[in-house]
Amino acid sequence: MDFKEKLNCYTNIINNELDKLLYIDGSEQRKIREAMRYSLMAGGKRLRPVLSLAVCEALDGDRDQVLPFACALEMIHTYSLIHDDLPAMDDDDYRRGRLTNHKVFGEAMAILAGDGLLNYAFEVMLDHVRKDSSNISAKLEAMHIIARSSGIDGMIGGQVVDLESEGKLIQPELLELMHRKKTGALIKASVLAAAALCNAGTEERASLERYADNLGMAFQIRDDILDVEGDPAEMGKNTGSDQVKNKATFVTLYGLEESKRMLKEMTREAVNPIEMFGEKGTFLRQLAEYLITRNN
Amino acid sequence: MDFKEKLNCYTNIINNELDKLLYIDGSEQRKIREAMRYSLMAGGKRLRPVLSLAVCEALDGDRDQVLPFACALEMIHTYSLIHDDLPAMDDDDYRRGRLTNHKVFGEAMAILAGDGLLNYAFEVMLDHVRKDSSNISAKLEAMHIIARSSGIDGMIGGQVVDLESEGKLIQPELLELMHRKKTGALIKASVLAAAALCNAGTEERASLERYADNLGMAFQIRDDILDVEGDPAEMGKNTGSDQVKNKATFVTLYGLEESKRMLKEMTREAVNPIEMFGEKGTFLRQLAEYLITRNN
Repeated sequence: MDFKEKLNCYTNIINNELDKLLYIDGSEQRKIREAMRYSLMAGGKRLRPVLSLAVCEALDGDRDQVLPFACALEMIHTYSLIHDDLPAMDDDDYRRGRLTNHKVFGEAMAILAGDGLLNYAFEVMLDHVRKDSSNISAKLEAMHIIARSSGIDGMIGGQVVDLESEGKLIQPELLELMHRKKTGALIKASVLAAAALCNAGTEERASLERYADNLGMAFQIRDDILDVEGDPAEMGKNTGSDQVKNKATFVTLYGLEESKRMLKEMTREAVNPIEMFGEKGTFLRQLAEYLITRNN
Repeated sequence: MDFKEKLNCYTNIINNELDKLLYIDGSEQRKIREAMRYSLMAGGKRLRPVLSLAVCEALDGDRDQVLPFACALEMIHTYSLIHDDLPAMDDDDYRRGRLTNHKVFGEAMAILAGDGLLNYAFEVMLDHVRKDSSNISAKLEAMHIIARSSGIDGMIGGQVVDLESEGKLIQPELLELMHRKKTGALIKASVLAAAALCNAGTEERASLERYADNLGMAFQIRDDILDVEGDPAEMGKNTGSDQVKNKATFVTLYGLEESKRMLKEMTREAVNPIEMFGEKGTFLRQLAEYLITRNN
């Protein structure tokens, strides 16, 4: 199977599982389930859950033991997008080529749909762990990694830095810290939670951590470049929004050429530590290289 | 120790623990921690965590094993208030005698502070469970009870019903369902999570569940009565807001006298099943009776 086929295959596995987890029933919770599904099933790259499955592959792990956590990570990512798009936050109208959640369901429902997805992520993990409590300390560690990375010392903390630096001249160190938390933390959690679940050893974890750190930063640099160079039709959202909002990005701080050089370097730094996994690390390496060239 | 002394004692234990859990550090997360603390440490009755400690007492349980879950319940309750008060939701300016979170920290920070508290509740529970994994299946059950009750089939589900019935003529059945979810679910979780942690037997659980169901409803009826008869100074918020917002309440549906009769009946129904705990159930019974007469 070549890279693209495998990526599609993993994406399908994740989409099917998300679809099963968040079904629409006839209850009085139909409306909020619809709002949650609207954003959760809107497509997207599924980068975080794909990373978890890729790590599972590199470690010869049991995919069924990783999948519920992978889905929880995508739910947390999606809730953060719904809240981020709210008028009080980034005030965005489009996301993944569709109207944002509050534009369709109203602000109040969008707030609750976000809350519901964050909460549901923990319900899903706890459901799974209670049904099968084998390897329990690894599962507790995985939940803990995910919880910490989503919280005020992780993703939410990054959003706060973003919020507080709006319209201000931001130093390179703070920009990097913001991204390490805002997007990097959950990307890293996707890798490290899977590593914990597959009982990775100390050296394997260290290599995967370096991979995740560099991949997260490369991902963000590519995002900033796409906001300048990307095609709105392919991306499903307006480009140039960073400039309109006067946001500091890698491109505004370092320029386009230097950003592209950094992107290549970070990707190399991500791929190198994966050498130790040999053949089994192929997909993880290909994924990093694919992300440099992504157009959405 | 009389009832009031014990209630104060439990409240202090909870406040001290919350204070320790959400300290203010010098990091870049200072601001969001302040916003979270502002609402978390604003006082309030601490009904949910007090209930957990009271159940622990009735079951001769180990309080240290219940306290982290009790604190998590209060964090979840507080996050729901912060989001509920937002302009897009109930648009309230005062809560517990102080300006609401978004009035002090702005809407964006209030959204993140709410998210942060929900997430932190799970961090706190998982921290505890990883440090001491004794009685692990009870702990997993307690987390699961709390997660389910906070989510779309519990508290958030109730908020959705509330949202969707705004300005509409609401049937008594739907009003009751809404309250069973919106406030009742988390009150019940406070009781049943503690029961799980203290390894309650089937009959004990059934009695405690009846207690919680009736107490939750009595609590809501008292709330509706207070919105009509209460003293704004004592309550720390404006009264009459249900009428202004054209909200269906027990008082608007059944009238004041009938609501008072229902309140007494529900309280009796709450207290009866606690007989089986004898002397050790005293505080649980007193708590139910105290709540009928509360003025805030």
